[in-house]
Formats: sequence, C-alpha cells, structure tokens
Amino acid sequence: MNCNTTKTMTETAASRARVAVGPDVEIVGITPAWGVASAEGWYDSFISAAAVLQTLETLPTDIDGVVMAGFGEHGREGARELLSIPVVDITEAAAHLAMPLGRRYGVVTTVRRAVGQIEDSLTTAGLIDRCAAIEDTGLGVLELDKDAFATAEAFVAAGQRAIARGAEVICLGCAGMAGLEEHVRDRLPVPVIDGVAAAAALVETLIRQGLSTSKIDSFATPLAKLRSWSA
Amino acid sequence: MNCNTTKTMTETAASRARVAVGPDVEIVGITPAWGVASAEGWYDSFISAAAVLQTLETLPTDIDGVVMAGFGEHGREGARELLSIPVVDITEAAAHLAMPLGRRYGVVTTVRRAVGQIEDSLTTAGLIDRCAAIEDTGLGVLELDKDAFATAEAFVAAGQRAIARGAEVICLGCAGMAGLEEHVRDRLPVPVIDGVAAAAALVETLIRQGLSTSKIDSFATPLAKLRSWSA
Amino acid sequence: MNCNTTKTMTETAASRARVAVGPDVEIVGITPAWGVASAEGWYDSFISAAAVLQTLETLPTDIDGVVMAGFGEHGREGARELLSIPVVDITEAAAHLAMPLGRRYGVVTTVRRAVGQIEDSLTTAGLIDRCAAIEDTGLGVLELDKDAFATAEAFVAAGQRAIARGAEVICLGCAGMAGLEEHVRDRLPVPVIDGVAAAAALVETLIRQGLSTSKIDSFATPLAKLRSWSA
Amino acid sequence: MNCNTTKTMTETAASRARVAVGPDVEIVGITPAWGVASAEGWYDSFISAAAVLQTLETLPTDIDGVVMAGFGEHGREGARELLSIPVVDITEAAAHLAMPLGRRYGVVTTVRRAVGQIEDSLTTAGLIDRCAAIEDTGLGVLELDKDAFATAEAFVAAGQRAIARGAEVICLGCAGMAGLEEHVRDRLPVPVIDGVAAAAALVETLIRQGLSTSKIDSFATPLAKLRSWSA
Amino acid sequence: MNCNTTKTMTETAASRARVAVGPDVEIVGITPAWGVASAEGWYDSFISAAAVLQTLETLPTDIDGVVMAGFGEHGREGARELLSIPVVDITEAAAHLAMPLGRRYGVVTTVRRAVGQIEDSLTTAGLIDRCAAIEDTGLGVLELDKDAFATAEAFVAAGQRAIARGAEVICLGCAGMAGLEEHVRDRLPVPVIDGVAAAAALVETLIRQGLSTSKIDSFATPLAKLRSWSA
Amino acid sequence: MNCNTTKTMTETAASRARVAVGPDVEIVGITPAWGVASAEGWYDSFISAAAVLQTLETLPTDIDGVVMAGFGEHGREGARELLSIPVVDITEAAAHLAMPLGRRYGVVTTVRRAVGQIEDSLTTAGLIDRCAAIEDTGLGVLELDKDAFATAEAFVAAGQRAIARGAEVICLGCAGMAGLEEHVRDRLPVPVIDGVAAAAALVETLIRQGLSTSKIDSFATPLAKLRSWSA
Repeated sequence: MNCNTTKTMTETAASRARVAVGPDVEIVGITPAWGVASAEGWYDSFISAAAVLQTLETLPTDIDGVVMAGFGEHGREGARELLSIPVVDITEAAAHLAMPLGRRYGVVTTVRRAVGQIEDSLTTAGLIDRCAAIEDTGLGVLELDKDAFATAEAFVAAGQRAIARGAEVICLGCAGMAGLEEHVRDRLPVPVIDGVAAAAALVETLIRQGLSTSKIDSFATPLAKLRSWSA
Repeated sequence: MNCNTTKTMTETAASRARVAVGPDVEIVGITPAWGVASAEGWYDSFISAAAVLQTLETLPTDIDGVVMAGFGEHGREGARELLSIPVVDITEAAAHLAMPLGRRYGVVTTVRRAVGQIEDSLTTAGLIDRCAAIEDTGLGVLELDKDAFATAEAFVAAGQRAIARGAEVICLGCAGMAGLEEHVRDRLPVPVIDGVAAAAALVETLIRQGLSTSKIDSFATPLAKLRSWSA
Repeated sequence: MNCNTTKTMTETAASRARVAVGPDVEIVGITPAWGVASAEGWYDSFISAAAVLQTLETLPTDIDGVVMAGFGEHGREGARELLSIPVVDITEAAAHLAMPLGRRYGVVTTVRRAVGQIEDSLTTAGLIDRCAAIEDTGLGVLELDKDAFATAEAFVAAGQRAIARGAEVICLGCAGMAGLEEHVRDRLPVPVIDGVAAAAALVETLIRQGLSTSKIDSFATPLAKLRSWSA
Repeated sequence: MNCNTTKTMTETAASRARVAVGPDVEIVGITPAWGVASAEGWYDSFISAAAVLQTLETLPTDIDGVVMAGFGEHGREGARELLSIPVVDITEAAAHLAMPLGRRYGVVTTVRRAVGQIEDSLTTAGLIDRCAAIEDTGLGVLELDKDAFATAEAFVAAGQRAIARGAEVICLGCAGMAGLEEHVRDRLPVPVIDGVAAAAALVETLIRQGLSTSKIDSFATPLAKLRSWSA
Repeated sequence: MNCNTTKTMTETAASRARVAVGPDVEIVGITPAWGVASAEGWYDSFISAAAVLQTLETLPTDIDGVVMAGFGEHGREGARELLSIPVVDITEAAAHLAMPLGRRYGVVTTVRRAVGQIEDSLTTAGLIDRCAAIEDTGLGVLELDKDAFATAEAFVAAGQRAIARGAEVICLGCAGMAGLEEHVRDRLPVPVIDGVAAAAALVETLIRQGLSTSKIDSFATPLAKLRSWSA
Repeated sequence: MNCNTTKTMTETAASRARVAVGPDVEIVGITPAWGVASAEGWYDSFISAAAVLQTLETLPTDIDGVVMAGFGEHGREGARELLSIPVVDITEAAAHLAMPLGRRYGVVTTVRRAVGQIEDSLTTAGLIDRCAAIEDTGLGVLELDKDAFATAEAFVAAGQRAIARGAEVICLGCAGMAGLEEHVRDRLPVPVIDGVAAAAALVETLIRQGLSTSKIDSFATPLAKLRSWSA
C-alpha cells in the first residue's frame, strides 16, 4: 500500500516486495486515488493517512496482509483497527530486521522535516531505544530517481554520519529508496536494510504463522458511526 | 477547530473557549465539512486530521491562532506546518496547565480505545512523564450528553481510579466533556482541567506575547506539490 | 517573587510581567529581605529558596497568585505546600510556552554551573524530554546589564549552539535576561521566550479558570511544628 | 541451537522451527555437549552461554543462520561476534513479531527467577519499551511436559494477568513451551507467539535478503588469544 | 550533619554512624542552630537546606568528610559546591548499598508528602531506575520514637507493600529510623539498610581512597558575592 | 575474583584491593583455572562468566565476600544466586563511588568492542543514567602493561574526551588498569576511580553492616539439577 499517489513508486515498492517473499506469494501494488504526490512532513502524512485508510476500506477480500509503504507516515494504527489481517509498516519493519544485526541502527531519509516524523513513528512503535541517528540526504522523495549517482552519493554521506553517531546498521528511510541498497551496500561498512522488503517478509511470516492483529482494546474494529470522506 | 462534524460539539467547545479568554478576544467555532461524527480511536482520528487540515487551508485571514479541539486526535503538527499562527492542541494544553498544580496528573476519557491514542499524543508532545494514569469512562463521545448524571458518575469513578494511581490533578479527556468540570469539581478532591479552556488561554497568551510556531526544520511551510482531497 | 536580593532585578522582572498580563491585573514585585545578590548554582539556590519561602509566609492576603522568578532556582514545591494560590516557576513556564511552538526547545543561561541545576529543575517538573540543549553564555547574573551589546552577542552565540543541537525555540535562562528577547529575536531564526512573561500569563490564566494547587498528598499544607529562621 | 542439554527439548524446538520456514529450508537441531539440563536463572544461563558458544565454534560450515533457542538466556551477542551468519534469539524474535500485532505485549514464562533475566534480555535488545508484563507460571522448564493440562491452565492464568496489565499479545516465555500456543490460543483473547517459530522465520528472512550481522565495532570477530574451555 | 534541630536525632544518627566506621574514625554529630524540628515535605526541606549550608560554612577544619543525614532532604549539591571534602547524602547512600544486594530496592519512609520528595532526590542522583517503590508508614518523623512496637509494625507492613511491588531490599527512609533495622530484619525476608550507616561508610571509603568532590563545572567553589542569612 | 586466566592481573588487582580495605581484612586473589587470557567483548565475557562461576562453586568457606574483578564482564547475577555472601562487581562499584563526587561520570576502557558491553552492564545494574561517556583507549587488556607511558597518554586523551562529553569523574574501565589512577590523577582535572578498590571497600562495608544478597526472587539459590562443565 503506497502512501502517495505516484504510481511509479507503487511499482518500485511492489517489485522490491516481490523479491522478498516466497514464490507462492502474490504482491499487489495499491496506489491511493487521492492524496499527496509524495509525503514529506506531518501535513502530507496526515493527508496520506486518510487517503490510504479510505483505500483500505475497499481492499479486495482475497488479500491476506498489508504492507504500509510510507517511511514514517501515519495510518498504521488506523489500518490495524480497520482490518483483521496483519498490517506491517515499513518504518517498524526496517527496525525489526536491523536490531538483530547490530547494537544500534540508523535511518537515512529524504528531507530534514521527515526526521522528527520518523522519530515519532519509531517512538510510538516502541523501537526508538536503539536508533542511534536519523540523518537526511536533503533530497526530496521525487528527486531520488532523478540522478541515481547523486542520490547514492548523498545516501553514503548521510550513512557515514549515522555510523559516526553509533549506527551499526543503516535503514533506507523512504519507500522510494527501495533498491538503492544494492548500489550503496559496497560503499558502507554495515548492512543496509530496505523497509519494503523487510515489511513484506514480516507480513508473509505472520500469515504463515496464523498471526494477526490483536482485536482487544487498542485495535478493536472501529465503532459504527457516520463518516464521510469529502465535503 | 472541532475535530468532528458534530456542530453541537463545536458550539459547546467554542462557548467554553469564550469563557477562558479576555473580553477583546473573538472565538470562532469551526466544524470540518466532512470526516467523523465523533473521533474514537486512530482510524477516526486520521480521517479527522485530514478533514481538519483541509478546513485549515482556507482559514479566514483574520484568525490569529488556532485551538485544535480533539483530545488525543491527530493533525497538530500538520497544522503547525501549514499555518504561521500559533496552534495549540487541547491534549497538550490540559497537561501544560495541570503540571504546575500537582506532582502528577491524570486524564479521564471516553472509550478504552482512546487511551493508547492519548498516551501517544502526550508522548510525542513530550508531556507523558508526569501522566500518572489515563482512565476511560466507557462512554462514547456522543453518549456524554445523553445523561448528565450518569456521565458525571462515570467521570468521578474514573477520576478516583486515576487519583489512586497517583494523579493529583485530573484533565477532561474529551472536548465533548467541556463544562463537565463544573459538575465534578466538588466531587473530586483535586483540580479538574478543561483542555479547551486551557488551549484557548494558551493561544491568547502566545498571541499577546508575539510568539508563533518555529518555522525552521520540523514545522517549516509545506513544500509545493500536487495534493488532492478526494478521488 | 524575585529569588535574589537585587531590587533592580525585581523591578525588571515586574515590568516584564506587567506587559504579559491583562490591564486589570496588578503586578507587585517582591524582593526577599535576605539571601543572595544573585543565584548561581545550588548553594546560592538553596539559600534563595529559604529566603523566598520566609518572604512568602507573610504574603499580603490580597495576592491571587505567585510567579517564582528564579530560572532553575529551588523553592517551587515548598511554595505550593505553603500557599493555596497558584504558584508558577519561570523555568517550567518557559518550557510550557516553548513546547507548542517547536519540536524541541533550548535554554540559554548565565554561567556553566547553572546548567545542571536547570536540568534538574526541568527534570523534576517533568519537562526535560523535549529540552534539546542548555547552553551557558559564561556571563554572571549581575554581568548581564553591564554591556547590552556584549550580552546580546553572547546570547546569540549560545542560542546558535542550542539550535545546532536541535532546539527550535529558545528560552531566556535567567530572570535577569527579561527584555533581552527583543534584542535577539531578529538575530535568531526561532522564537525566543521570556519565562517571566510566560509565568505571569500562566498564573493569570490559572486564576481566571479558578484553578489552584492540588492540596492532596504532595502539596498539602505544611504540618504544624517548630520552625525558626535564624540562630 | 538449544541452550540446554535436554535433547527432547532440542527436538521439540526444531520441529516447531521446521513448521515456520519454507519447504527448501533444512533445520538442524543442536544440543550442547555440556551445560545445564534446563536454564532457570542467571547462574544456569551463564553456564549455558559458554556451552552454546563452544558448540558454535565448530558449527558445520553449511549452516546459513542460527536460532538461539533459550528464552532470556545469555550468549546472543557472543554468537554475533563469533559468527558471520545471522543470529536471532527467540526472546527478541518473539517481541519483533508481537509488536506489530498489538500496542503492548506480555511474556509468560516458567519460574519467578526467570522474570528479571528476561527483562534484562529485552532491555539490552532495546525491546522492553512495549513489554507490559512478564508473568511466571511457577512451573520449571522440565515440568512443562509433565501435565499438559496443568501447564495450559497455568499458562492461561498467567496470560490473563499479563492482559490485565496491558498486554495485547502474549509470547511463550520458554523454548520448552513451543507448541503450547496451539492449546491456549482459543482460551486467550489475544495472539500467542512462539519465539522459536518467530526466530526461525526471521533468520530465514535475513538470509533471503542477504543480510547478516554488522561486523564493525560491537560484533567484530573476536580477537585472537588464548582461550580454554575446562581446567 | 542532621537536617533538623532535634538534638536527640543528631545523637541517634551519630551513634549509628559510629558503628559503621573503623575504630580510628571519629564521628561528630552536628545540629543546625535554626531550621525545622523535623523535615517533612519540600517546604521544611528547603528551610533545612539553608540552615544546614550555613552551619557547614563554619565546619571545623579538621573534619574530613560530611554525611548529610536527611532522607530525601535538599542541600546535597550545595554542600558539594561549598566544601572540598567528600559529601554523601543518606538517600543516595542507602541506594548505593541496596543495589548490589537485590534487583530492585524499596524505601519505607514517614509521611505521604515525603514520597515525591524522595523520588526527586533519587532521580536527581541518578538512582531511581531500580527503585521499585517508596511507601510511607504514615508516622511523622517525631512520632517514630513514641511507640517502638507500633513503629516496627507500621514499617513491616509498608515494607511488605514495597516487596509486593518488586523490592528485594528495603531502605529505612528517614534518619530517625536509624536502629530500627535491628527490630525489623527478622520480620522481613529481605536485607534492610540504614542510610546513615551506609553514608558514614561511604564517606570513610572515599577519604581512605583519597577521593573528593569533582570541582569542575557543577560543583566548583561558589562565586564570591553578597550573601546574608537573615533579615 | 579475576575474570581471566592471567595470574599477574589477579595479583595486581589483589594488591589494589588490599590498599582499599582495613588492616584486619585479608584479600585472596583467585584466578579461574580455565577461560580467557583477557576478556574483550561478549564472546570472551561469556566464557569468562562460566569459568568464574565454576571457580566460585568451590570457594573456601572462610571467604566473607567476593569482588568480581572484570569491568563490564558477565557473571555478577549468577554469583549472587550461587553464594550467600556479598558479591560486588567492579563495574557497578566504580559508578557507586563516582556518583557522589560529580554530576556525571565517564568510563575509560580498553578496546572499542568493550564499550557496548560496559553500557549493558551499567544499564542492567541501573547505573547508566549518570554515565556521560564510555571512551576506549584502543589498547587491549594485555597491552596496558607494555608501555606505562603510552598507556597513561592514551588514558588521559580518552579521559579528556569523556570530560568534553560531560563527565566530572572518570572510572578506570578495566581491572588491568588498577594503579593507573596514580599516574593520571595529576593530569586530569577530575577524580579518577579504580573499580577494584571501590568494590573491595564496598564488600568490606556490606560485611561490616551484616548485609548480604537478598535471596528472595531474583537471586534465590539455584535449583538442584544436572549441570556439567565440559563435554
């Protein structure tokens, strides 16, 4: 489930997810019909969250689990209330795979304004304790594809700053970076993790183990009430 | 700025805000044109946040500050990016007034599912350290008005549970409770705070002191990009 | 309530407080009859706390609330036990107004030894979580007035260090700095907050809302016993 | 890699791991040649850690990853230094799968003395923040198999205590409990997670994604020196 | 250094300290010439801190170290600034001896209002992490001696509450309780620590090892300035 | 109790311990019969812990207390379960003596890989809160004696880095550094603490006060079971 309306990013993320799961798993990329071309900051993120949740209301019934493919974006807990299938966010997934690999992990993201938002997302997921640094490249989400070389350069520089602050593993801090790990892994002395691949594998694992969202208390099914999606 | 579409709640909140500010201050109650009849849980909250932010995009230019009148609801940081005037959320405002009055404070809210959401909101605002307890009454937002006596009974019982857990001040945990403090203050041995009144007074104070949101880094004005609000 | 015996600082603080409150509010500056000419460090702070508390024992009965005008100084909780009217400390007040304006705030204070003391004061007030930095100017409390230009220079330099550490709002870290914000606001890219003005406004707000210190448990009225104030 | 010398527990754990991974994955159960019949407390755990690490020194070269199958037991970080393949501990793995399913998780373990040890293990793994409770059944590791009914009864009772303390997901707190989840899932209103299955799936995922332990700083290969394993 | 003006308490504390140190160590009990008959709460504590600090200004030059004998009372950091000899507070000392003996410790103190103050003292000393509970007996400082049996009963009951909350060691939470440990040790299943004895031994140890307060930054000698101790 | 098999280090540590205790105290240096020549990192530490615990199983009955002389090494809690006499680890002991001397302390250790391990040891001991920095000299344990001058140089440089990060007291971060404090104290502006001397004095104090490990819950005597120490 892409968090923005840019279909090429949906395709990129879906293709990375396909590599991460078993041959018997079908990945369907979904793009919200409205929202933001890219999510950069809380304002975009809250618009994105609503668009994503409305999209998930009509999720095909044969879907067994959902990857929320927005790094640091909102909506995660709402999707858990709405759905009875597993929901994994790429922000938390990257941390879940990073933590067994090194003492502390770092995140390299896009623009400065995303840093605090990612920090909030990791904090509310209970995963901030071992996050050594969240560094930005200064590149906007839609700039990442413009110049693959410059993007890799900026990523490596930010990754080195995170390592200097104690990171022993680096997470790609944007769904739009999926695939970039292949170009930077040989240039950084630590493992580099793609949250999209991580989340796809975690959803597959939860499904195989017959596990899904706890429906007591926090993520119980939403109460019936009047809701409207536009004026 | 009400977080839901129930106009009577907008009026209640606006009337409480009016009592809290100086005679020269005009309070305008605003209701989003779409969204949820009441916000209870993350799912509702994310819909609410988008509706509120779209509403704030066309805020009259003569407004000097905004009260976000949803207890524990999302959108706060997005409004700070979007606007150049002060934005205060009733969740944080209640805590800001509670903390100088007692060693720890408690929150009494509506339904169980709101508890974790309020905890997240206080955590990301940096105000959770002195929160002793968040207790629910079990009453939905729209049930609060149905039976004033039963609501007061349920509030007092939950307040006593919060006090037993260390709270020395109690915050009304829902904008729809505004005014209830007058009916429970004589039945609880601690101060009872209405976040709507608290936020209105804080916005007035910030305006009088010429203070507004910091626009470096986290809450800089949103980047120009393609955004749409419905399919 | 000034924390030291320097009457000119009482006047400065009182004049800043007057600007912060409504026209119907009267501000009375009070100077302790004994204690320290300036409070710099724990040793001074504890002398100051006792002198302030003795002064507050004979507070005129027509006073409706108290501003504790010592940044990081002790006494706050003792005044809450002693009095039945609202008591707000400028240290906490500055943080309460700073937090809604930016993701993290910083404090710029006088001498190095005050840093740990301010950190303790914000910690015991439950407000340290969003404090990014406490920086000192190296100027003693009584040096602040000597050379307005040099003081502003030192403040701006320390403020920039705090911003580099993540502060998005800066608090004046000494009552003696009240007024300085007007000279530095245009030289720092973030809001600058005066704790004296902040505390005066918060006390006014608490009074208007009929709120005062919780008298159960922590801040109950002191027990009757033999107390003496000098050998 | 079982943490104790009880071969039947190695078999149970291996069989659970097999269910959790793809058909192309071979699981080899390994039992240390010396150590403790069961690990219950720090004393046993440290003996176990050394025995496990000595065993791992001669790990067959065709092994691609290791599951450390002792809940709360030591050795995890040492194995990461020693080996260049992924190492996942069942304690952390259970938490990694639990956290996306509910707001907080709980652990139900064997004896009281294991509680603090599990708390330390989750703390040093950076995963304690969302742990609501660690409850013991009072049953020793080797008692778990004696009476399946009594074990399930004790587990359900302890699980309900954890839920009352805020857990929305429950983790089996002992490798010897593997399989028990099938008997208790219908008696507890929350997901129940087996750390052995969780760890096996995480190791498989890390291998598929070409990820392994970061070898800079903390988990660099041990330095060459004189080491002996017995008097 | 007693924190209050009750000479019998000075003698009790001094006698307990004598038991705790080597035969070559002389203990001199000092009582402030003014202040509070007993310190119970912040208000008393701040008066006490000033009286104690004034007394320490004229400390005989042949004193080699100071025990601050007020549990949870203020003044500790001020004494460290003022003096060049080691200063140990009984609050922290009790925790320093308790922590190597059990996973978590508890404190049993006098009145309810002292609980928060002790929590602050342990927090600013960096020792709160392993404090499981601070329980009060409801007995005032000067009531402790009235009925030895009733005091022991109340202490044991409060100690059992602390154990139920996770304490594996109990600290006497008042200097006036010194000696009580002998009457309750056989009635509680955990070690019971007297902070006075603990602090005396720690001061002796620091002196023997040639260690004293660090005089850089926080506890540098107070600046020269005008200070007065009474109107 | 040395953590490694290097007898000269046992002697050095024992000689430092002798200086720290009263004339009536006999110090017996014990070296494990197997294990690691030096403990550097978790892998070594876990081997060391088992060797130390096996050695402690046959501790002479006339020993009254144990110093665990490995800085940051494992085994501490296991020894507390096994023995009924006081057990103090030099890591925690150094912190216990450092904390009353300055606002924050730092540790200067040997190699980079020891840093995280020491951080874990201080964290699980509840003493990390006031640890400002753990810096490494880059010198291995067995290199410390090679060139006394170079070792002192490296220690002073690392100590200055710790001071720059806020340390007001420095702890020797390796038992093999015992004695080094005498060569560096005049070159660093802060107290320098030897954990071996600190732990010896703390054990002596606990014994004199009739205090020993709490045997309820966490550190109860190990359960009877089959344990073997080698294949």
